[in-house]
Amino acid sequence: MNQPRAVLFDAYGTLFDVYSVGLLAEQCFPGQGQALAVLWRDKQIEYTRLVTTSDDGAHYQPFWDLTRAGLRYACKRLALALTPEREDQLMNQYRHLSAFPENREVLQALKERGIATGILSNGDPGMLGVAVRSAGLAGLLDHVLSVDAIRKYKTHPEAYRLGTQATGLAAQHILFVSCNGWDALAATWFGYRTLWVNRYQLPFEELDTQPTRIGRDLRDVLTFFE
Amino acid sequence: MNQPRAVLFDAYGTLFDVYSVGLLAEQCFPGQGQALAVLWRDKQIEYTRLVTTSDDGAHYQPFWDLTRAGLRYACKRLALALTPEREDQLMNQYRHLSAFPENREVLQALKERGIATGILSNGDPGMLGVAVRSAGLAGLLDHVLSVDAIRKYKTHPEAYRLGTQATGLAAQHILFVSCNGWDALAATWFGYRTLWVNRYQLPFEELDTQPTRIGRDLRDVLTFFE
Repeated sequence: MNQPRAVLFDAYGTLFDVYSVGLLAEQCFPGQGQALAVLWRDKQIEYTRLVTTSDDGAHYQPFWDLTRAGLRYACKRLALALTPEREDQLMNQYRHLSAFPENREVLQALKERGIATGILSNGDPGMLGVAVRSAGLAGLLDHVLSVDAIRKYKTHPEAYRLGTQATGLAAQHILFVSCNGWDALAATWFGYRTLWVNRYQLPFEELDTQPTRIGRDLRDVLTFFE
Repeated sequence: MNQPRAVLFDAYGTLFDVYSVGLLAEQCFPGQGQALAVLWRDKQIEYTRLVTTSDDGAHYQPFWDLTRAGLRYACKRLALALTPEREDQLMNQYRHLSAFPENREVLQALKERGIATGILSNGDPGMLGVAVRSAGLAGLLDHVLSVDAIRKYKTHPEAYRLGTQATGLAAQHILFVSCNGWDALAATWFGYRTLWVNRYQLPFEELDTQPTRIGRDLRDVLTFFE
């Protein structure tokens, strides 16, 4: 099969480390930082699904708002006292998540090969703009696509369709890269070639579909161009 | 407001105790039974959402199959050796979940008042049939509604619509009862009057919507008829 002509990356969990808030969470709530980071992330994702499935976007809220809602739920669930100051601190940290260190070299290698690059993310444009600038990735991305344009989150097919629309390419000519198993799964269903970057040595989803390839970090993107 | 004319119950987690598999799970995998029961349930629900959101039912699998997929994932994730025998044992246990003890008296009280009763469940018809018979609830339910008819799981609005269609009543004349916060939330979005039975003292979802009432067990259904 020909090499992909474009590579689209998931952002949260893939380019940016959603668990890097754990350190601040641990400072705020000693002994509970890891539990809070995990539950916060799980709830944030759950909320994207609830608002997407229910009533075709009528209950849509931007990712930033769902992230805040997830934080509030997680703190209540873990019986942690989330003062307004701590909430602001943690949300501000979420705006400035650590980028995984190999991001830049992989994006640079793709640009050198003339491959179109982009982000296709649940994040709203404001969040993505800050994250991309903070990580110094702005010049290395041809597309920064947010599902906010259609008010439906991944894994809705319309969300994945933003990538084919923006690049003008058919799905099979695009490589979609995600560290989130569910994202790699649904992108495969959509028709993309997919790389699941299995950073945490997890099993893949048991839904009778496999990603095109499985890798260990973002450098494995480059195996599609050898 | 007038009293509801019908009461529809969620099945799994509401009438039937999904965590009652924990005991057998603990026998199979000492020290891991609780963790397995929780992750199995979470994954089962996650899979209903993934297949519903992605491509309008093209990836639908019946609840039984998704339940098995969730079990397989959970065992891999927890590094538990799921032999075919253990898988059969655990799946068979899922077919015969314990019913919460107050079910019968509540359904009987509703029947005595002439209120229509039913189940509106993600479970497929085979699973629901066995569960209803095992719990001795068959004569107390006017409707046993499975989303399998439309190949979309709750929280899709079409799933909730099965209840208005079957009863011939508008949503505001129907009380929908669930122990699952997300289910009570989305049923409220759909237009039902709702009772969230908060068995496990959890916070409600942080999505700007509250159920009509919150209760502690199924007997609180009867507060709508006082």
